[in-house]
Amino acid sequence: MPYIRESIVTTVDAAGKVHIAPIGIIAERDGWVIAPFRPSMTLDNLAAVPFAVASYTDDVRIFAGCLIGRRDWPTVPVENCPVPRLETALAHSVLKVENVSDDPLRPRHFCRVVSEGVHAPFTGFNRAKAAVLELAILVSRLTMLSREKIEAEIGYLTISIDKTAGPEEREAWGWLMQRVDEHFVNEAGNS
Amino acid sequence: MPYIRESIVTTVDAAGKVHIAPIGIIAERDGWVIAPFRPSMTLDNLAAVPFAVASYTDDVRIFAGCLIGRRDWPTVPVENCPVPRLETALAHSVLKVENVSDDPLRPRHFCRVVSEGVHAPFTGFNRAKAAVLELAILVSRLTMLSREKIEAEIGYLTISIDKTAGPEEREAWGWLMQRVDEHFVNEAGNS
Repeated sequence: MPYIRESIVTTVDAAGKVHIAPIGIIAERDGWVIAPFRPSMTLDNLAAVPFAVASYTDDVRIFAGCLIGRRDWPTVPVENCPVPRLETALAHSVLKVENVSDDPLRPRHFCRVVSEGVHAPFTGFNRAKAAVLELAILVSRLTMLSREKIEAEIGYLTISIDKTAGPEEREAWGWLMQRVDEHFVNEAGNS
Repeated sequence: MPYIRESIVTTVDAAGKVHIAPIGIIAERDGWVIAPFRPSMTLDNLAAVPFAVASYTDDVRIFAGCLIGRRDWPTVPVENCPVPRLETALAHSVLKVENVSDDPLRPRHFCRVVSEGVHAPFTGFNRAKAAVLELAILVSRLTMLSREKIEAEIGYLTISIDKTAGPEEREAWGWLMQRVDEHFVNEAGNS
């Protein structure tokens, strides 16, 4: 399978209203594929305004936040582009949709990079940031997994949080763990 | 525990010979702690020349490579600094050792940032890069872990490799897995 960049994708509707979503953009030839699930705001927006900005941030609160409904992360305009970028992006790519392969689940939007920008230095990997991303993916799939599987994975990821997290990573982890706890309570109520 | 940045730390000996090592630098007050294991070349070099450069790279082949003996990654000079940085660093910090707390295992070198530089854009997280880093840590601890534990962790990490790796991540993963295989063969020979 091809290389995937975990990015925060911004799009706008015809009125210019901004939508933010964490999306893994997929390497394909000399461009990137955005394949939003159907239905989704990103999908509708790309049909209305065929541009997206992929913001590359290492603030994992944004990935976790979008997943639990905190989407009010500040954006700033990008020159010559109808779509803004994330304010805290370390770097970004402006993507223009060149063609769409329809698909019942995830229509594939092949995009070419129109322009790019650098805003702040990368400060190195951090194991806790990676663990938050993995927990975010787990949280998006809770209903598909057994309690045992969920708890085993969280146990493994907790090691990196305990050993290497700063305040931002702990905050993001806490938001996601609250969602996991709610899921277990709901499950207990339904059984 | 405090925030840890996974970085590639360069140091030099009195003759200027460069040593490269993947080290997690530890946040402390307004600086960073480098705590190399005793004995190590980084430790000796810091005693001779009390400067280090932390290079922030997202090329996980360098982390994996250093662990399996491939340390010939190109470096380039840093202005006003006796120590070079990694050529492929996305950014770097020049660190000056301000004081050392001795320790039988890992003497803690408290460092202040003297200067920083940005060289290339961050292009987003990638789950396979994170999986390679975790496998690198696992490989550094093989003799302390049971075969069951090692295989379970590799099984989990393999998912991110299969789904999101590019050629560089596959190459780094392959180097590390060769080391895991050698460990299992040696273990079988010793039992």
